[in-house]
Amino acid sequence: MGKNAIVGQSGGPTSVINSSLAGVFQACCKRGAEKVYGMCNGVAGLLEERVVDLNQVLPGSLEVELLKRTPSSFLGSCRYKLPDAAQDEAVYQKLFAILKKLDIGWFFYIGGNDSMDTICKLADYGKAIGSDIRFMGVPKTIDNDLMVTDHTPGFGSAAKYIGVVMKELVRDATVYGTKYVTIVEIMGRNAGWLTASAALARAEDCEGVDMICLPEVPFGVENFIAKVEKMQKEHPSIVIAVSEGVKLADGRYVCELADDARFVDAFGHKNLTGTARYLANQVARNLDTKTRSIELSTLQRCAAHMTSRTDITEAYQVGGAAAKAAFEGHTGEMIALKRLSNDPYQCTTEPHDVHEVANFEKKVPLEWLNDSHTDMRQAFLDYARPLVQAELTPVFIDGLPRHIYMK
Amino acid sequence: MGKNAIVGQSGGPTSVINSSLAGVFQACCKRGAEKVYGMCNGVAGLLEERVVDLNQVLPGSLEVELLKRTPSSFLGSCRYKLPDAAQDEAVYQKLFAILKKLDIGWFFYIGGNDSMDTICKLADYGKAIGSDIRFMGVPKTIDNDLMVTDHTPGFGSAAKYIGVVMKELVRDATVYGTKYVTIVEIMGRNAGWLTASAALARAEDCEGVDMICLPEVPFGVENFIAKVEKMQKEHPSIVIAVSEGVKLADGRYVCELADDARFVDAFGHKNLTGTARYLANQVARNLDTKTRSIELSTLQRCAAHMTSRTDITEAYQVGGAAAKAAFEGHTGEMIALKRLSNDPYQCTTEPHDVHEVANFEKKVPLEWLNDSHTDMRQAFLDYARPLVQAELTPVFIDGLPRHIYMK
Repeated sequence: MGKNAIVGQSGGPTSVINSSLAGVFQACCKRGAEKVYGMCNGVAGLLEERVVDLNQVLPGSLEVELLKRTPSSFLGSCRYKLPDAAQDEAVYQKLFAILKKLDIGWFFYIGGNDSMDTICKLADYGKAIGSDIRFMGVPKTIDNDLMVTDHTPGFGSAAKYIGVVMKELVRDATVYGTKYVTIVEIMGRNAGWLTASAALARAEDCEGVDMICLPEVPFGVENFIAKVEKMQKEHPSIVIAVSEGVKLADGRYVCELADDARFVDAFGHKNLTGTARYLANQVARNLDTKTRSIELSTLQRCAAHMTSRTDITEAYQVGGAAAKAAFEGHTGEMIALKRLSNDPYQCTTEPHDVHEVANFEKKVPLEWLNDSHTDMRQAFLDYARPLVQAELTPVFIDGLPRHIYMK
Repeated sequence: MGKNAIVGQSGGPTSVINSSLAGVFQACCKRGAEKVYGMCNGVAGLLEERVVDLNQVLPGSLEVELLKRTPSSFLGSCRYKLPDAAQDEAVYQKLFAILKKLDIGWFFYIGGNDSMDTICKLADYGKAIGSDIRFMGVPKTIDNDLMVTDHTPGFGSAAKYIGVVMKELVRDATVYGTKYVTIVEIMGRNAGWLTASAALARAEDCEGVDMICLPEVPFGVENFIAKVEKMQKEHPSIVIAVSEGVKLADGRYVCELADDARFVDAFGHKNLTGTARYLANQVARNLDTKTRSIELSTLQRCAAHMTSRTDITEAYQVGGAAAKAAFEGHTGEMIALKRLSNDPYQCTTEPHDVHEVANFEKKVPLEWLNDSHTDMRQAFLDYARPLVQAELTPVFIDGLPRHIYMK
C-alpha cells in the first residue's frame, strides 16, 4: 500500500489559493497517493491532528471546479510560526509523529513568506533526522513579494480586481464635475505591487488614476497635499491609489499618525489601516475640496467573482508541479513561476531551494516608477498586463456565484 | 422638421443608469425625435447651456452596448434643487427659454427622489405657462426608496453586488477559525433595502451573515454588543451588515457618535460614514475579539463588472417606456415598474403621476424582518431574489471591462 499526501494552506487567503489546492490534490491522486489529507488551519491544526480526507470532501470533478472558484482557504488557515528546531525540538517531534501516524510521504504547504519558512524548517529538520517525507512549498500571496518566482499566484487576480474597481471608481468620481479627491487604500505592507496595479486602469476609455504611492518610496504628507493641490488645478476629480504601508522618512507608517488602535500579529506584523482616511482628512483640512477615502480591505483578496484566468490556471499549475517534484523526490523546495516571454506571454514552472525564498521580500523596482515616483512606467505594465488576462466565469446559481465549503 | 428630445441624469450614479440613458436615446430616435440632446451635469449644466448631441456621441450600436456596461452617469450628474416657482420664477424662465432655443419637445430626467422633484416642478410650471413640452421621469436609485414603483432600476445590481461580496467576505472571515467580528457598512440613509440584501448571501454553500441592522429599526449600541457576544459563543466568526444610516432611539446617527467631521449637501443630507468603524471599535473595546470594519462605499453603486441582467434590462425598459409615454403626450409622470408575479418573475411598466413619487421615501416593511429585527424573512427574499438574476458580461479588452466616456 502506497503512502499518503497531505496539504495545508497558510497565511492570508487569496481568491485563487484553492485552485492550487485543486492542483496538488488532483496531481497527488493521479500520481498514486493512497489518500490525500487536508490540514485544517494549516500546521496549527495539524498539531491538533485536525485533518480531513480530501478524497471524501471532494468526491468528483464538479466539487473540484467549484473549489477553483471559491475564495479564501478551503481548509482554513493559520498564522502559526514554527520555533527554531534548535531551541524547541518538541514541536517537531510531535509533528513528525503525527505525520508518521498518517503515513505521509509527501507534504505540501500553500502560502507566502511565512509559509515558506515553515517548509524550510520542516525540510531541514526532516533531513537532519533522516525522514523520507518530501516537503514542497506552493507559492501564494496577493502581495507578489516572494523571491525567485517571476510573480506569485494570487497577485494576478488581485491586480485585475484593483484595475477593474479603479476604472469604476474613476468613472464614479468624475460624475459631478466638482472638486473631489478620492484616496483608495490598497494592501501591501512593504511591497507596492498591488498599489502599482492601479496603473492598469489607464486606457483609451479611462483617464486612469492621478497618483500612485508605493511603500517603497518615502512618503511626505505636506508634499502629498501640495501635489494634490497642483493636480486639482488641471482637473477637479483626483483619484489616488495609496499603499496601506506608506511610511514617512523616519520609518513611521502614515496610518500611525492617526489615532486608531494598533494590533500586532504572531509574526510581529502591524495591522495597518486608516492611511487613506488620515490622508483624506488632511487634504480636506488643507484644501478646498470634498474628499473620500476607500479601503479595498479584504475585498481585494477574496473577489472570486473577478479573477484572472491566467492566475487561476497558474495557481493550479504550481500545485501540480509541486506534486510532480515531490513524487520525483524533491524536498525543501518551492515551485517558482518562470516567465519565458512577455509578448506573447509564456510562463513555465521550476523548483527552487526554499532557503532562497523564506523570509525575503521582493519589492517593486524603483526604475519601474516615473521620475517623480507617482506613476508606473511601461516596464511595469508590460510585466503586469499578461497576468490579468482572461476570466473564469463563476457558476451562478440563483443569481450569485456558487462556492464550496466544509460545514 | 420634428422637435428634439433632451435627457439628463441626476443624483448619485448607479452601475445601470446608463442603460436607462440608452433606452431613452434609442426610443427617441426610433420615435422620430430630430435630435436627442444630453444635458451635461443635469439641470445645473442645462442652465449653463452645456449640452451634447447624443447622435454624435453615440454614433453606433457598439457605443450603445458599451454605454449599457459603463458605470456612473455618462452625462455627468448634479445635486441641483430647483427653487419653488412661486418664489423664484427667473430660473424657470431661463430654463424654458433654453429649451425653446433647443426646440425641445420631450424632456427626460433619470434619477431618484430629488430628480422626480425636478420633473414635478418643471411639469407643473410647464402646464401653468401652457408649454407643450412633455416632462417624464425615469426612476433610478440603488436605494430602492421610490414610491409607486415595485423597485427601482439600480437596486437589483447593487443588491447582487452586495450578495456576492458578502458571500466572499463570509468565506474570507472564517479562514483562521478564530474570534473575528466583521462589520460591513452598506449605503442607505433612511431605507434599508441594500443592507437587507446582505440576506441574499445565505444559501446551501454559505452560512450567510449573522446580523442585519436596518435604519428602519432603532439601534442600541449596548444591545448590539450583547448580541455579538451571544452569537460569538455559537461560532467564532461573525459577519454583520449594518446600514450607514442606523440611528439611536433619540434620532442621532450612530456614526455621529464618532469624531469625524460631517458634511451636509445641497439637499441637507448628512454625509454618513464611519458607522461600521465606530461599532467595530466599540466591540473591540468590550469583547475579547478581533474586529474589522469594511465600508462598501461607492463600490456598491459603480460595480458595473457585476450587474444583474434583469436590472440592466429593466433600466433600459423604463427609459424606452418613458419615451413612449412622452411621445404619446404624457407629462409630469414617472415610469414605474409593476410586478405581475414573483415566480415566474414577470414585470411590466406603467406611468404614474410624479406627485405621488417626489419627496417621499419607501422603507423596508418591518413585517419583512424577523421578530428580533436582525434578519430578513422569506417575503423579502422572494421580493429581492428575482431582481439579481442573470448577468451581463462586460466587454473585456486587455483584461479589464471596457467603458465609454466623454473626454
